[in-house]
Amino acid sequence: MNQRIYVDNSATTAVSEKALSAMLPYFREHFGNPSALYSYGQEAKKALEDSRGMVAKAIGALNNEIYFTSGGTESDNWAIRSVCESKNKMGKHVISTAIEHNAILRTLEKMQGEGYEITLLKPDKNGQIAAEQLENAIRKDTILISIMMANNVVGTVLPIKALCETAHKHHIIFHTDAVQAAAHVPINVRSLGVDLLSMSAHKFHGPKGVGALFVKVAVKPAAYITSGGQEKGYRSGTENVPGIVGMAAAIKEGTENLQNNTRQLTALRDKLIENTLKIPGTYLTGDSANRLPGHASFVFEGGKEGAYLINMLNEEGICASSGSACSASSIEAPHVLIAMDYDKEIAQSAVRISLSYYNTEKEIDTINERLPLLIAELRRRKEKTIR
Amino acid sequence: MNQRIYVDNSATTAVSEKALSAMLPYFREHFGNPSALYSYGQEAKKALEDSRGMVAKAIGALNNEIYFTSGGTESDNWAIRSVCESKNKMGKHVISTAIEHNAILRTLEKMQGEGYEITLLKPDKNGQIAAEQLENAIRKDTILISIMMANNVVGTVLPIKALCETAHKHHIIFHTDAVQAAAHVPINVRSLGVDLLSMSAHKFHGPKGVGALFVKVAVKPAAYITSGGQEKGYRSGTENVPGIVGMAAAIKEGTENLQNNTRQLTALRDKLIENTLKIPGTYLTGDSANRLPGHASFVFEGGKEGAYLINMLNEEGICASSGSACSASSIEAPHVLIAMDYDKEIAQSAVRISLSYYNTEKEIDTINERLPLLIAELRRRKEKTIR
Repeated sequence: MNQRIYVDNSATTAVSEKALSAMLPYFREHFGNPSALYSYGQEAKKALEDSRGMVAKAIGALNNEIYFTSGGTESDNWAIRSVCESKNKMGKHVISTAIEHNAILRTLEKMQGEGYEITLLKPDKNGQIAAEQLENAIRKDTILISIMMANNVVGTVLPIKALCETAHKHHIIFHTDAVQAAAHVPINVRSLGVDLLSMSAHKFHGPKGVGALFVKVAVKPAAYITSGGQEKGYRSGTENVPGIVGMAAAIKEGTENLQNNTRQLTALRDKLIENTLKIPGTYLTGDSANRLPGHASFVFEGGKEGAYLINMLNEEGICASSGSACSASSIEAPHVLIAMDYDKEIAQSAVRISLSYYNTEKEIDTINERLPLLIAELRRRKEKTIR
Repeated sequence: MNQRIYVDNSATTAVSEKALSAMLPYFREHFGNPSALYSYGQEAKKALEDSRGMVAKAIGALNNEIYFTSGGTESDNWAIRSVCESKNKMGKHVISTAIEHNAILRTLEKMQGEGYEITLLKPDKNGQIAAEQLENAIRKDTILISIMMANNVVGTVLPIKALCETAHKHHIIFHTDAVQAAAHVPINVRSLGVDLLSMSAHKFHGPKGVGALFVKVAVKPAAYITSGGQEKGYRSGTENVPGIVGMAAAIKEGTENLQNNTRQLTALRDKLIENTLKIPGTYLTGDSANRLPGHASFVFEGGKEGAYLINMLNEEGICASSGSACSASSIEAPHVLIAMDYDKEIAQSAVRISLSYYNTEKEIDTINERLPLLIAELRRRKEKTIR
């Protein structure tokens, strides 16, 4: 097997050296409980609050607007539940999109059984949602709008500022799932105007098991996990100090190097896209202009089950996925592509190649060399089966 | 400042060398997403399932009865919410105790606002709850009984087997918060008979930010965090693989060494208790016979605010707490002692010294030497203030 080439960074990333180094002292040396009175706990408390400051700074928020969670999924669940719980006397209508992550979609689905009405906006062929579309969906009883900042399957970056303005014109709270966007595109919560924003550390070279929810000071969250009163009583439980420290180090690193990373990743991505589109019957999915710097996603004719190609890539030491980490082990067509009107068969051929700053040009060259051969081989096999 | 002596292991523990070593490869080497199709994700998936097996084995459960969470608080919240959500058509009465952790109490409190009726059993002077007491509290509409296995403030180990039998006589689901007990006392879920059991890794030298909920196969949990379908769809979100691996290593280590640790800790604890009780006007709280091996807790006359003593101990390099990690920074009397009929003033003097296998006899000797001097000093200061 060749040297492994990991290009599934939208699913999860390696913890960066800096983030891991930052974390290590908090496992065995400064392991105290941040709630403890003695100085040993206070060291952990300081690390916790410094980390909160670093995460806040990375997105232009105030320190007391950052709540640490166990990850992006919890952040999304909490955001939706929190707003709906505190606003449901004013209405029970929620607007979101058909291309959201399951952390949003499954939660909204569950809430339909609790009397909420959900409108899911349909994306255009690039995976975009327009402000006018949102405007038309708003009702008198709409209490929350939740639209993702960047899509995991097709890499499209959405016009959150405009969408948020539309929401606010009607005094409706706006949440964005920025799990794919944080530390990958510039984020300033003030200029975007968002009220709540979800992040997950392991999507930007921080550790798994930690995330954050930004909640604007003016929007009081509802308590999600109840106990000893950590995170101002809104998210109780002993804080995951090493994880939080790792998240802060990673978002700082990613944000500080954002310009350089974007330049590097965009160049690699575009080289990959350009070459892949030379393969006959292969198409880029998502927005070619407004897309995540390291995100390339394709469908190809006659591919039907992208899972086969993923397996063939794996045999070549190339780790890619069919579009969504969380449903990667299923061979279902990504719901995002179906929502974008791809027919089921072509949607099943989806392959996502998502890069990070650890990827090299040499790796992209290898993929560019192998991918056409593998797709040709897959098509040959299919033809044989048909005969 | 002297070499630091950490004796607040009921609040949190240092990650053991073995647990940290087990975790390390999963941050940067085997960092793949367990849901991914390629072999890189499958390595993580294997680590996840091996860990599940280790946690299951430690408490005599089946692998598919273990669900990983972000910690003890989430496990407790989920357990309560899950049972109530699925059983509330049969009634809305829940029985628990006045000495539970806030992860239970605050959750039940919140549920009172949602139409649930809560009965909190009152402990005896040792912090014990008797099966007859529980029997008398059971009603036709009782759907859940949640009683902790060991108390964090006073160290009492409760008769879970008998309490669970009483619950089951009436076909009521029984949950136990074993956050303080797991890897500290022998646990076998089959012989105890419990339906749900909560654990937290950082209480037994595993990492913060990870825990588990045991749910008996016959009791289907309700989904808690909804998204991509991890943990059989009941607790979604990319799994915290390094944390889970660390938890498994720690519970294995703790359980394998349980006999030796118990012998070592009980000897140290008893030496500490014996010496401390020689200080005039000082009393052990909790059950002197049925208590956690490393747990010593006291109140002392004229102490009023235990926080002062905690601070004085801290100045001597000794990290102890007033009884509960989560409310340690408040100078409120622990609710557990109030429930046990201690008057408020004496309850405020509470000091908890909780040991782990990292503590040495020399450290206990130092505490035994300093504690009488500090209490005398505190009493002298108070006397001066009064004059």
